[in-house]
Formats: sequence, C-alpha cells, structure tokens
Amino acid sequence: MDQPTAPTTTVHRCISLPGGLTLDCGVHLACLEIAVCSYGTLNQAADNAILVCHALTGDQYAAEPHPVTGKPGWWSRMVGAGRPIDTDRFFVLCMNVLGGCMGSTGPRSPRGRSPGPGDGVEPWGTDFPPITIRDMVRAQRLVIAEMGIARLFAVVGGSMGGMQVLQWAATYPDLVFAAVPIATAPFHSAQNIAFNEVSRQAIFADPDWQGGRYWSDGRIPSRGLAVARMMAHITYLSEEALTRKFGRRLRRDPYNAEAPLALFGEMFEVESYLRHQGSSFVSRFDANSYLTITRAMDYFDLAADHDGDLAAAFRQTATRFCVISFSSDWLFPTAQSRTVARALNRAAANVSFVEIDSDKGHDAFLLDEPALDRTIRGFLAGAAEHAGLQHQPVDQAPFVV
Amino acid sequence: MDQPTAPTTTVHRCISLPGGLTLDCGVHLACLEIAVCSYGTLNQAADNAILVCHALTGDQYAAEPHPVTGKPGWWSRMVGAGRPIDTDRFFVLCMNVLGGCMGSTGPRSPRGRSPGPGDGVEPWGTDFPPITIRDMVRAQRLVIAEMGIARLFAVVGGSMGGMQVLQWAATYPDLVFAAVPIATAPFHSAQNIAFNEVSRQAIFADPDWQGGRYWSDGRIPSRGLAVARMMAHITYLSEEALTRKFGRRLRRDPYNAEAPLALFGEMFEVESYLRHQGSSFVSRFDANSYLTITRAMDYFDLAADHDGDLAAAFRQTATRFCVISFSSDWLFPTAQSRTVARALNRAAANVSFVEIDSDKGHDAFLLDEPALDRTIRGFLAGAAEHAGLQHQPVDQAPFVV
Repeated sequence: MDQPTAPTTTVHRCISLPGGLTLDCGVHLACLEIAVCSYGTLNQAADNAILVCHALTGDQYAAEPHPVTGKPGWWSRMVGAGRPIDTDRFFVLCMNVLGGCMGSTGPRSPRGRSPGPGDGVEPWGTDFPPITIRDMVRAQRLVIAEMGIARLFAVVGGSMGGMQVLQWAATYPDLVFAAVPIATAPFHSAQNIAFNEVSRQAIFADPDWQGGRYWSDGRIPSRGLAVARMMAHITYLSEEALTRKFGRRLRRDPYNAEAPLALFGEMFEVESYLRHQGSSFVSRFDANSYLTITRAMDYFDLAADHDGDLAAAFRQTATRFCVISFSSDWLFPTAQSRTVARALNRAAANVSFVEIDSDKGHDAFLLDEPALDRTIRGFLAGAAEHAGLQHQPVDQAPFVV
Repeated sequence: MDQPTAPTTTVHRCISLPGGLTLDCGVHLACLEIAVCSYGTLNQAADNAILVCHALTGDQYAAEPHPVTGKPGWWSRMVGAGRPIDTDRFFVLCMNVLGGCMGSTGPRSPRGRSPGPGDGVEPWGTDFPPITIRDMVRAQRLVIAEMGIARLFAVVGGSMGGMQVLQWAATYPDLVFAAVPIATAPFHSAQNIAFNEVSRQAIFADPDWQGGRYWSDGRIPSRGLAVARMMAHITYLSEEALTRKFGRRLRRDPYNAEAPLALFGEMFEVESYLRHQGSSFVSRFDANSYLTITRAMDYFDLAADHDGDLAAAFRQTATRFCVISFSSDWLFPTAQSRTVARALNRAAANVSFVEIDSDKGHDAFLLDEPALDRTIRGFLAGAAEHAGLQHQPVDQAPFVV
C-alpha cells in the first residue's frame, strides 16, 4: 500500500518513551516519541539543564538551522555560546511538543504501535486525542527523566512556550529551580480562542483538508493553512510594527502586470509580506497539528485546575520566577502577565516582573530586543548563583542526544 | 441561457443615473444605479436631508427590516421618529454604496448597459473596476442632485461610513452643513489592510469562488466568505466585550455529541457565536462585493490626495464637525480620530471631538451606547439651530423614493 504522504521526510532525533503517557482526556498513548534538540553539555551533577519551550508554530530547532527551511533556529539569537542562554554554561534542551509535526507523537504519527514495513498503519489525523498543555509538559518530564536529569535548572519560553513554563512550575515545582514565562497568560482569553477558531475554520473550509484525512492523495490543505497563518501572523505584530515596516506602500502585483485596471493589479507591501508568511508556513507545518495544538492552548486555564485560584497553583513553590511581557503585545497583553505576577506574590513566591517597552508586539520575544536579552541573562546568572551552579564550562558529556 | 445566479432576488428601490460616472481609476461606468432607502419627509426648502453612510457590510436598510434577514435595520435604534436622528424632523437617506450587493451597481450587476430579456449579459464579477471611497461619494452626490437636494444638512456614518463622511466634507464642502464621522480614520492603516487581505485570501482560497465567476453554477464561496466574516467580526469587538459576553464557557458541540473524545467534541461559546456570524453573513452578502469594497477602504488616504497634508483636505471649510471615537475600539482607535480632529483644528474648522468611554469595541457605534445617542442628538440639534432649520415636523412630501 501507499505510504502516508507527509510534507517532509526529515529524520528527527527522538526519545522513545516505552511506558507511554495517559493523557488528561483519559486516553493512554502507548506509543510515544518526543523529538529533541540539545545544545551545550550536561555537567556531572546534571544540574545545569535549561528546557526551552517553543510556541504554537515553533519546534525543537531552537538554535540550529531548520532542516526544512534552512533558516537559523527560531531562538538562535538567544541560545548559544555567549548568548543570554549560554551554552558554554548550560545544557539547553528543546523538544517538539506532543501533538507537533516535527518528530514528536502527533496527528501525523501512525495510529498503531511501532508499525513494521507493510503494516499499512494510517496516521492518527484528527482522531489524535485532544491534548492539553499539561500533557505536553508531562511528556517533557518523561524525556528528562529518561535522560537522567532529575531537576531542571530553568524552564524558559514565550507565548505557548510560556504556558508550558507556568504548567511546569505548577505541576512539578520541585523539578524547576527557575522559571521564565514570557509574553504569556495563565489562560487563553475569549479573544485568543476566537482567533484560533477562525484559523481552524480556514483549515476546515479547505476541501483539500478532506476531513483531516489528507494523507491519502498527497494533497494538503495548503490554502486553508496559509490563511490561518496569515491571520495569526497579524496578531503577532503590533499596529506600530506593521506601520513602521510596511505603512501603506504599494507595489505592482507581478501576476497582474498586464492588467493595470485589475482590482488587485497592485498590492500593498503588507499584503505581499503576509502572502509570503502564509505560503512558506505550509511547507513546514501540518494542518492537523495546528488544530491539535491550538486546541491545547484554548483549553489552558491554570486557575481552573485550582478552583479558580491562580495563586493556589503555585502555593509554597520554591521556584524563582521572572515574568516578562511586552508593552505592545495585544495578543498576550501585559495585564495577563501581571495577573501571573500577582498570583505568584500571593503565593509568596520569589518573583520579578518586567514589562519591556517595545513596539514589536507579541513577536518581540523572537526578535532583536536587547532589554529581553539583558533580563534573561541577568536573571539566569542570579538564579545560577543561588543554585550554587559552578561557573566553569563543562567538558564532560554524560548524555548527548 | 441561464440567468446569473444571485443569492437573493430581492427587488430594491433604485435611482438610475443616466449620465453614469467616471471613476477614479479612469473607467466610465455608463450604467449606474444606486439603491436608496429614505425615512421621514423632505421639507419644502429641501434643507433637512441627512445622509447616513453605511459600513463595509451594511446596506441601505438602516431603519427598516432587512429584506433578506428580516432583522431590524442596522441603525434602527438611531434613526426613526423621536430617535437621535429624528425622522419627525429630518429626511434621512441611506444608499447602498457603489460596489455593493443590495441593488447598487457593483460586481453582481450585469456588465453591459440595460440588458433586455435574453441578452445573456453576465455579471461584472471581479472585472468590476476598482473603486474608491470618493467614487462612492460621487455616486451619492449624483443621487441627491437627482432628488432635487442641493445641499445636505448632515452626513453621518461609522467605520467605512465615517470615511465617506470625511470624503463628502473634503470633496463637497459647500454641500455639507454638518458632518459626523464616527469610529473612523483618515486612512486605512497597515494593520487594517492586513486584516482585509486575510479576508480576501480566505475568499480566494475557496474553490467555489471560481476566480470570481461563481454565478455560472449556482455555488457561492460561502466557506471562504464565512471565514472572512468571522475574522473581521473579531476585530469589531473588544477583548473586554468578548470576555464579558462569552468568557471561556464551553458547551457540547451537538454535531459531535456521539464522540466525547473528539478533538472538537465540545466548543467554546465564542466559537459557536463566530460560526453563526459567518454562516448568516453569506446569505446576504456577495463575495465579489466584499473584495471590491475592502479594496476601496484600503485605498482610502485623504491626506495623500493633498500632498500628505490632512488639514489641506478641509481648508476653509464651513462644515461643522463632530468627530466621535470609542475608547475600546482597536480597529479604528481614538488616535486616528484625534488625527482628524487636529487636522480640522489646523484648518480652522468648527470641530468638536468626543471619545466615548465604552468597552464594546469598534461595534459600539451600532450598539446601545446612550452617550453616542446623546452626542449625536445634541450635535444635530445645535447644528440645526445654526442652520436656521425650522423645528416643526414637515408634512409635505415633494420627493419620496
């Protein structure tokens, strides 16, 4: 029979978790693999590990060229030798989330257990069970245990990565020495859910989605997924950033050069940019993963797990927190980070809260923001001192993925 | 041959403009009709006419039940006997914009001139020439002249309707005694263009759009148009309004009741609301009109027509302005209305500027906002006094559409 068609055939480095994972929805995933990238070296004490958590459309390729696009890793300006998350000092792990499409178990994975050649096992598709941010974190927990890491020095991430940071601190407080949730929120707001829902409807509306079974004929719902990405991309930028980058500048549409009176004979530069964002996204992302992961974000509500009391999620935590927001982020506005910081205060946690003045919107955590670099570098240095981490670079490699 | 298929066969009251109109793009539209509704009575002096301009997805049915949906007119709370725009006193006109789909000449109109039975003239579709807000206003100008109205007492409108108000005052300053631009802007921002572009891409992505020639087989791009509407609808509401109305409340999806573990077995109320907004929209709106009108909004830039000097657009105007914005409107934020008010000040115009405190977002101009009612009622009363308008209701009807 035909192999399921996947947009990429890249081989990722994966950790198999033979015990599987029982999800929040009650389903037991017997076959569980998590794709991992690592940078730097785990020291003898195995106490210098930092877990970097990626956002909705990110992946484990935080600090190395992306195998599909060839572009630099999404946080290569933050993670590396001498960078704010310094791989000369720390062992940095980044994992593709459960439900993702870059090697971790998700809708694109075969439904059965370890299919052999000719087994003809189909992908999960939209039958992949609904997952939660906590499921993602539990899977990460299994990976670090498998790697012999008893405790993380820090967990760091922005946006949905920040949700994972908060969930780590709430679920495994003893395993997280320091936590840096960036541009995130303790729950997904009605507006955030609404934007996600429109993204999903754009995918559903594409006949090539085929009810989620698009592997059968090699077509993928690229138009719907591109529209979803374009819309989401606007929410990642601020109005100021869009105005600064594109304003109202026009250019001829090369495809309509012969039709000067065509309705779309010329296009605004912001339109050209969005179309590029949409079309380049579909080559590296799976539509069913987009559905699964956006749903996990929608379900995220840390206080709801504690009878509506966010402070109770962090009661008696020993974790040190650095909560960071950006002034022009309207998708995860500062008010939501402030809610987190206040709950941490009520829980008597060690917390610092920084709102970074930036006009770059939500995407600021991925961009050149020296104040973010300084904040993360400084916080990690202080935390490392409190943790009694040795300052010398390590040269042993007890575990390399 | 088959008649072109249109989603509705409603007959609208139309004014034919035999001279046609030469558009900003240079095309001469020989065949021009504008659909009109009116409320109240034009007095003998023909000096009590108020033109109400509708927004992107509005139409001429401002204060009477909509012929397709059966719902009350979109501004029936504002326009009527004893209402802020009082039809006991004023003769209120509302016209479907040029390029619209409720009777005015637009992409759904036959391409040729006055086709007779069996002429087999196809609709313009996306070959309808690109239009501008100024073209819309010029067409309205022809209609009022045809009706024997030399001068409008006032022009009032929100959102794209507000763009028309500003354009009226700039193009025909002597024909507008008072102008009320609400929740609008002197140009469409990069962010606004970006949202419009995603709406359009959602329509383009629907195979039923068929390159704009969807009249041939009776199918319409309802999925793409619904996605466009859903996305736009989010931008009309504030985060506060979405949270207040829906929060994170969940309900079972009736279509997935049998599949409790389905990825979308339950839905958030905000999702249900958006889906309803999308699906109900497609029964009353034409996709090609959506493309044409959003493009006209994108092109709107009043200062650009005056070498970048917005004040020059209003130089020596005698029109009295009341500029209104809403505090939680992030699509047409207060800053843009303030830009208009400042330009009017520089032009030495008579202007008052009101930011109304509201948590309802851009849609506030359509909703129950007593402060808006008071502002419009008071401004019109003051302007009527300055204009020397008689206060008695009129009972003559020299022109009724």
